[in-house]
Amino acid sequence: MQTPKQAPYIAAIEAGGTKFNCAIIDSDRNIISTKRIDTTTPEQTLDLVIAFFNEQKLAGFNFEKLGLACFGPLDLNKQSAHYGSITATPKPDWSNTPITSILEAALNCTIFLDTDVNAAALAEYKWGNATNASVAIYITIGTGVGGGVVINGQPLHGLIHPEIGHMIISPPKGIQGVCPFHGNCIEGLAAGRSMAKIWNQPAETLPDDHQAWDIQAQVLASLCHNLLLNFSPEKIILGGGVMNKPGLLENIINYTQESLNGYITLPESLTFADIILLPGLDQHSGLFGAFALTQQQ
Amino acid sequence: MQTPKQAPYIAAIEAGGTKFNCAIIDSDRNIISTKRIDTTTPEQTLDLVIAFFNEQKLAGFNFEKLGLACFGPLDLNKQSAHYGSITATPKPDWSNTPITSILEAALNCTIFLDTDVNAAALAEYKWGNATNASVAIYITIGTGVGGGVVINGQPLHGLIHPEIGHMIISPPKGIQGVCPFHGNCIEGLAAGRSMAKIWNQPAETLPDDHQAWDIQAQVLASLCHNLLLNFSPEKIILGGGVMNKPGLLENIINYTQESLNGYITLPESLTFADIILLPGLDQHSGLFGAFALTQQQ
Repeated sequence: MQTPKQAPYIAAIEAGGTKFNCAIIDSDRNIISTKRIDTTTPEQTLDLVIAFFNEQKLAGFNFEKLGLACFGPLDLNKQSAHYGSITATPKPDWSNTPITSILEAALNCTIFLDTDVNAAALAEYKWGNATNASVAIYITIGTGVGGGVVINGQPLHGLIHPEIGHMIISPPKGIQGVCPFHGNCIEGLAAGRSMAKIWNQPAETLPDDHQAWDIQAQVLASLCHNLLLNFSPEKIILGGGVMNKPGLLENIINYTQESLNGYITLPESLTFADIILLPGLDQHSGLFGAFALTQQQ
Repeated sequence: MQTPKQAPYIAAIEAGGTKFNCAIIDSDRNIISTKRIDTTTPEQTLDLVIAFFNEQKLAGFNFEKLGLACFGPLDLNKQSAHYGSITATPKPDWSNTPITSILEAALNCTIFLDTDVNAAALAEYKWGNATNASVAIYITIGTGVGGGVVINGQPLHGLIHPEIGHMIISPPKGIQGVCPFHGNCIEGLAAGRSMAKIWNQPAETLPDDHQAWDIQAQVLASLCHNLLLNFSPEKIILGGGVMNKPGLLENIINYTQESLNGYITLPESLTFADIILLPGLDQHSGLFGAFALTQQQ
């Protein structure tokens, strides 16, 4: 008698400050089932997450591995007593949440954890617009701004992990950033939340011809300028809701070139439009990133 | 009859815009002989370099490997027809100099090439103040400003190689950077040459209590702020002549902490003074970096 062949399903969570996207994904990277859970308190949110995955198990979608692409800051040091916890975050209630051990215990599976943005960078490196890039950077410009880096196929951690959104730049004339920590960091200038404060209206209601979008392109060009000089990346992927604005990417590319002012000579046949791109995985960089984490060693 | 045992001597060059430091180094990293050659034209400079190493060969210090830690920008792409050349540099006469192939042909040895700052980062990672750092950064603040990065023991290249000195920051109030490309980049604000322009006197003649040094600490703290958030390095080594100013390092550390404003929570028992350090190899980071390159695969 043969043992029934079981498809190696994978559980994936893209855990953000607004919502947790949960999914069962098969080994061919098809999304089998998915659920969006609002981020409220850790207890309420994680109870719903656990309930979803337990239902999936009952429905026959068993899994041994769960990829967790989580908002930070995270303790990723495997030697630390707090490995797998969300550490000091301005998000109410979530500081010091041992999210990894809670899920591991409740779902009896192995968790593969990284920041949401490192995971997204990994997915774009594997299957998206940054394939074969020895240095791939993923930036999300949404409610906040975050960045992940993959170097030679490995997510960058270092001492903690990158927090690229809080890099300081020189703001365009007359503009003042609103980050409570740093004022003029990228997040304080370009996050959706910051745009709303700077212009006194929700970012999505700013008309196409509002100067806010030109300023936004200049700020994100300074980000790209600094990323290009720091990391010398082959690819910078700009994702997140704010990047849906038509024409924004093209303006960022033009201002980046203007800002670098000829200092970097690109290898023949390359232009900055080959380096600075939207995600290749559309809205799925994060969820596929969680899936990609389970394939790492 | 036994073959006489020959010590595996290594040739090393730290090639800078002001001088070429050349040396023969033995396998225990003892400097056997050294010569400083002024950087003039490529022909004149390289003729003197070749003459020095040929003399060393005649004196019995044969070598098969030469480590070349060179000012950039460099073409480090081994698939490129111009691999090993200095590319477009503002340094007179040196643009498009195929320095690697010139030295290789003249000295009949294998050349191991990287940027001077990547090589210095590698030396500090191997033997200096950044040992065991998964992310080690070396910054030189001298006539210009440059930076190298070593991640998990490998120098970072990416598309070309980092050019950290040209990262843009927000300058202290009332100060205007002088970089001909970018104005307010780190090099335009903090390089020795830029300080001289901003304050109308050579940097080394600025008295200890001149406000220039407080401004300098603020600028270099912005650099450290951005490096910490981009790379999450375990170590940032600040080298170069400008860093010899007493008290400057301590002021940079204080301003960095102030600038981050509590956003990064360091692992227990660590302070920013454990992360931001002077070189452990004193003035030898560059030359030992050239030596270290010959040990890479």
